[in-house]
Amino acid sequence: METRYKNVMCGEITKEFRGKEVVIAGWVHQIRDLGGKKFIVIRDSSGVVQVTISKDAASKNLLSVVEELTFESVVQIRGVVKEDPRAPRGVEIVPHEIKLLSVAKKPLPLDISGKVPADIDTRLRERVLDLRRTEMRAIVKIGDTVLKTIREVLRSLGFVEVFTPKIIASATEGGASLFPVIYFGKEAFLAQSPQLYKELLAASLERVFEIAPAWRAEESDTPYHLAEFISIDIEAAFMNYEDVMKILEKVIYEVVKAVKQENEYELKVLNYIPPDVSLPLPRIKYIDAVKMLRDRGVAIEPGEDLSTTHLRILSEVIESPLYFVTEFPTKIRAFYTKPKDDDPTYSESFDLVWKHLELASGSSRIHQKELLIEALKERGLNVESFSFFLKWFDYGMPPHAGWGMGYSRLLLMLTGRSSVKEVTLFPRDKKRLIP
Amino acid sequence: METRYKNVMCGEITKEFRGKEVVIAGWVHQIRDLGGKKFIVIRDSSGVVQVTISKDAASKNLLSVVEELTFESVVQIRGVVKEDPRAPRGVEIVPHEIKLLSVAKKPLPLDISGKVPADIDTRLRERVLDLRRTEMRAIVKIGDTVLKTIREVLRSLGFVEVFTPKIIASATEGGASLFPVIYFGKEAFLAQSPQLYKELLAASLERVFEIAPAWRAEESDTPYHLAEFISIDIEAAFMNYEDVMKILEKVIYEVVKAVKQENEYELKVLNYIPPDVSLPLPRIKYIDAVKMLRDRGVAIEPGEDLSTTHLRILSEVIESPLYFVTEFPTKIRAFYTKPKDDDPTYSESFDLVWKHLELASGSSRIHQKELLIEALKERGLNVESFSFFLKWFDYGMPPHAGWGMGYSRLLLMLTGRSSVKEVTLFPRDKKRLIP
Repeated sequence: METRYKNVMCGEITKEFRGKEVVIAGWVHQIRDLGGKKFIVIRDSSGVVQVTISKDAASKNLLSVVEELTFESVVQIRGVVKEDPRAPRGVEIVPHEIKLLSVAKKPLPLDISGKVPADIDTRLRERVLDLRRTEMRAIVKIGDTVLKTIREVLRSLGFVEVFTPKIIASATEGGASLFPVIYFGKEAFLAQSPQLYKELLAASLERVFEIAPAWRAEESDTPYHLAEFISIDIEAAFMNYEDVMKILEKVIYEVVKAVKQENEYELKVLNYIPPDVSLPLPRIKYIDAVKMLRDRGVAIEPGEDLSTTHLRILSEVIESPLYFVTEFPTKIRAFYTKPKDDDPTYSESFDLVWKHLELASGSSRIHQKELLIEALKERGLNVESFSFFLKWFDYGMPPHAGWGMGYSRLLLMLTGRSSVKEVTLFPRDKKRLIP
Repeated sequence: METRYKNVMCGEITKEFRGKEVVIAGWVHQIRDLGGKKFIVIRDSSGVVQVTISKDAASKNLLSVVEELTFESVVQIRGVVKEDPRAPRGVEIVPHEIKLLSVAKKPLPLDISGKVPADIDTRLRERVLDLRRTEMRAIVKIGDTVLKTIREVLRSLGFVEVFTPKIIASATEGGASLFPVIYFGKEAFLAQSPQLYKELLAASLERVFEIAPAWRAEESDTPYHLAEFISIDIEAAFMNYEDVMKILEKVIYEVVKAVKQENEYELKVLNYIPPDVSLPLPRIKYIDAVKMLRDRGVAIEPGEDLSTTHLRILSEVIESPLYFVTEFPTKIRAFYTKPKDDDPTYSESFDLVWKHLELASGSSRIHQKELLIEALKERGLNVESFSFFLKWFDYGMPPHAGWGMGYSRLLLMLTGRSSVKEVTLFPRDKKRLIP
């Protein structure tokens, strides 16, 4: 769209604009001086375009503005589009007016061209500049495709988008790692997940999804954890774990397909190809996973949770980067997880794994009040503090199931980066609250 | 989709299913006993269907299950679809199996049929039942259309979806009404708005939008305020207030159009017709609004903010339920608001008003560091605590503009309800933290 400052985006100027006057606005991406000519590359969110100034032909005024330009300064340029086979997309702009809208100091605290690589701490400190790098803009674009596609798939399956409360009165899944909030003088907490509220909504609205922040006071600094993260959640009445696994793999399938189709350029920038997905994804029961690991000499006891190392080996054994592990021991899952009818030691649960990383986790949920109270007690949780939740099991709680998926972990799989901090715009962890 | 518990949704069973065996699952919505026959209406998220039991023909087993049924109990029913002109959509199900999945206690703490109206406090306390009411499901459906449409419009204009941090180190727009968070032993705050972060993102990514929670510790209990609310935000580089007003009115136009097209049934349930929108919406300068009000004998001084009462009168004077008030006095707007170049007493700002209610608020932003520091000082704000923000004005801050809109206020306009609490699934206010 045409705005107050530009009538065309830099990346949209092609040979068809030949001879036309355009107004562009953006950041000074490159400056090159070739004796009689000065080449300035201007960048906006659509891409770049070259502006060429002949020192003989240009006015004194224009030349003096050009002299002031620094990397990342913001300019508005009025000029005529000319063909030039040596320029990007075969076009350049010959300017007759350059307005300097904002001058950038030099040197910049971070090199945007990517020629001088910076460590992640520096990049996160200088994040506003870092986000201007082509790679980061590619990640944001891919993220946008992901969000759009997930919602499309879920809506096509009858799910409605909801928002659950983020300030909650009590711990949802045990008291560990919660952030306390002072709520009108009383203590409350930030939600670790929308779990209990999405279950209640499934009991009212049948099929719901939410994409929203959640918080865990993670003490440790790992490439896969954040104190604040975006959780993609679904919950559905009249479904069990197998039903919601099918939905999850369909979401993954459609997301990978959409990114490959719509973000070809961005994937090229990132020099990365997301894994091929063919459905159904392999499903390995927990108990068989343990057997596979023990067969390969790994010391693991049935009942133990699977570690990153275990998952990495499993992925190799089954020769699939994406797979489900199913039917975990009931004891190592959250209290609301439904045990299997025929063998309550194991549960109607699953994790979706990418190589060594748990992307999503889900289950059928217990929908009978007595069983739920028992499960709370077994885990040493205070039944009373769940009364706001348990109450509704008296008024028509359907069987239900759901899953939660970490948005930034999904983005790792799609962009080939190594840390969720890299793919999160302004990550929050124990040492990072600014910017 | 077919799930573990059903192969068709209640509302989708039509005459085309005649003679077929179906499996449905849902809540017991109505029970009627007509001597030799029993009619049970089953509801799921798609609608209702009638199940008819002839006492002569049905098995003892089946009849004994039917006897146990209470309102809102959850059942799974296998049966054959028959035509019956007296039933909804001309069809009924003759069951051969009814499984009682979850028995609801009686009496219910809230009447779902809507025959016995309840006050808002009772409804919010019994919210999980309240959300099963046809009206509430209609509001949720309309909300889903709204969210989908807003994102579609913004994406079509080159905006990408982002998530800004919700735990922040310092107050963004003055220290009032913030919720403190204990962040790894240090004091931090919940974001009142994504304002400063979205501005930084506009300086990197050019056009961004976010739909996410925000928090204000509102002491007062009004129909238009919540402690936790969903904020719809955009921010764009190289735009001014007039550009983003055009985007806002396009969003409103498309949202109203989509709701009228896609939610005809839901609007009928709510017995409400959203206002007609024709673009451009009327724009009244603040100074002219004050004149109009004074002409009608309202005691208002130039420089005063407009109250709900003022807005209600204005809406009548200009005979439009939707309108912009523009160019507010600089002093009564937030520090980042850009003063007008030709008259800095007034600002490049606007509110979008529906009758008496501010739906959205926006402006061109100051993009020059010295002016911003001056604006902070004029408002008695601590410049130092904004250093994380000000820093980036040295590295290529483009001119930019944006707006924020309250999602629940927009839903009020679209559904004709009277309080944002009614249209929010689990509202949070000073007295409400549960459910």
